[in-house]
Amino acid sequence: MKVRLAGEVDAAWRRELAAALPEAQWCDHGDAEFAVVANPVPGALADMPSLVFVQSLWAGVERLLADTTLPPGLPVARMVDPAMSAAMAETALWAVLALHRGFFDYAAQQRAGVWQQQAQRRADEVAVLVLGRGEMGGTVGARLAALGYRVEHWQRGRELAPLLAGADIVINLLPLTAATHDLVDARFFAALPPGAAFVNLGRGAHVVEADLLAALDAGRLRHAVLDVFRSEPLPAGHAFWRHPRVTLLPHAAAATDARSASRVAAANLRAWRDGRPVAHLVDRGRGY
Amino acid sequence: MKVRLAGEVDAAWRRELAAALPEAQWCDHGDAEFAVVANPVPGALADMPSLVFVQSLWAGVERLLADTTLPPGLPVARMVDPAMSAAMAETALWAVLALHRGFFDYAAQQRAGVWQQQAQRRADEVAVLVLGRGEMGGTVGARLAALGYRVEHWQRGRELAPLLAGADIVINLLPLTAATHDLVDARFFAALPPGAAFVNLGRGAHVVEADLLAALDAGRLRHAVLDVFRSEPLPAGHAFWRHPRVTLLPHAAAATDARSASRVAAANLRAWRDGRPVAHLVDRGRGY
Repeated sequence: MKVRLAGEVDAAWRRELAAALPEAQWCDHGDAEFAVVANPVPGALADMPSLVFVQSLWAGVERLLADTTLPPGLPVARMVDPAMSAAMAETALWAVLALHRGFFDYAAQQRAGVWQQQAQRRADEVAVLVLGRGEMGGTVGARLAALGYRVEHWQRGRELAPLLAGADIVINLLPLTAATHDLVDARFFAALPPGAAFVNLGRGAHVVEADLLAALDAGRLRHAVLDVFRSEPLPAGHAFWRHPRVTLLPHAAAATDARSASRVAAANLRAWRDGRPVAHLVDRGRGY
Repeated sequence: MKVRLAGEVDAAWRRELAAALPEAQWCDHGDAEFAVVANPVPGALADMPSLVFVQSLWAGVERLLADTTLPPGLPVARMVDPAMSAAMAETALWAVLALHRGFFDYAAQQRAGVWQQQAQRRADEVAVLVLGRGEMGGTVGARLAALGYRVEHWQRGRELAPLLAGADIVINLLPLTAATHDLVDARFFAALPPGAAFVNLGRGAHVVEADLLAALDAGRLRHAVLDVFRSEPLPAGHAFWRHPRVTLLPHAAAATDARSASRVAAANLRAWRDGRPVAHLVDRGRGY
């Protein structure tokens, strides 16, 4: 099994992949049949006539699919790593708990030397709207519901505005596609009830940043927790860094776990080789 | 049913109690048979010859039991409010998720303008020691275990030091008694592995504050999340307010919910009147 590695794979990834797939011949040249890639630069898979299957180590494949040198019929699978889904659920739970129980406000109070208890709502009084119902959105929604939150999901084909109108907290876990690019804009924020909060765990390009800032500054949006940005690392001097109602993370909500993801990738390559069904094949028309 | 109310009960409490117990005659004088109390001042229940049963609206009854005018044989029940246990579990989960995933560190990075991802551990690589296994400790431990954390409990009769030695995060949910007063001291911190974190959701008097500060400043303790203090409100100028490794809450981890707690209290008063078993009677020798 000749496999070519491309993209953001460090020594730890190489070690875990080699352990998970001992039958692989790892090769740098163009005669590989399989490619295992992590956000490769455009053209990285050009001139590989024997290539039959691409396994991404990243869940988000928008850059890979935008590569115009990628042969149209070539099957691509994206990564669904259970350890990454668990990590994403941890970050989502932390953000919802902090927003629901006022822990970001208490942090501001601590810095100001203020001792003041806030009103306490029960979880079943808090409506959380999860954008997306795939592996990530489904896992996050189930964990939140288990803690008692009122959870709704939005997905393709449902009308968004009525769901936004009933949401106290919105969490974005959508894939980035042509249909979801710039989805979170002024119209989106105008549909939320005053005092709602927004959590972006998807992609920076889902959000029109100027509209988000305007919603925060107008007081329509109470708080935003942001893990992803139009430009990463977030540029020095960007308004998000010091905004009192923004909590930001350095694209750290959920890293793929090299050990478990390597096992998932190895199982998928063997499935393809043996003619068995492959997990999480990308629908290239849909974009994920 | 003649009932006397005493202690920290505001209009909302009076309204919910009246709705939950319509058969009560609420009286201020000494001929009440029942007392419903919220942290009453010492002597509040003196000179009540008909008093047969005391229901606390607070979970912690250390001040009530220390009242030397409280007749020795008088039965006292403490409050176990399911809404309060759920709120406590929310705060504990938030604190553990933030400590495990570095969210307090990311907040400091945001203030400093630093974009830096930290290593990500899985929940099953994090050992959480819960001090206490009652209503609060049990609920918190079960919720943490459901998220994948390695959870141990310490309770009376077990040896503490070996459990501390294996803990990444310790959460205090003990009742305050003669046996647990000042339990969290220099010896306690010395038994923890370097880099552990401490969460106090119990009582301020469990902790020797100078020893906690020394453990933080020596770097032995990575972070402390504190909801309760020797003196509350925490005095202005106290070192905890501005300590970079202390996250403090204004005794807000879990408020009793007046509605659900009033129902619990009403059910207990009726049970006593009708000769049925009463829930959560205090063992006055043990102190909770």
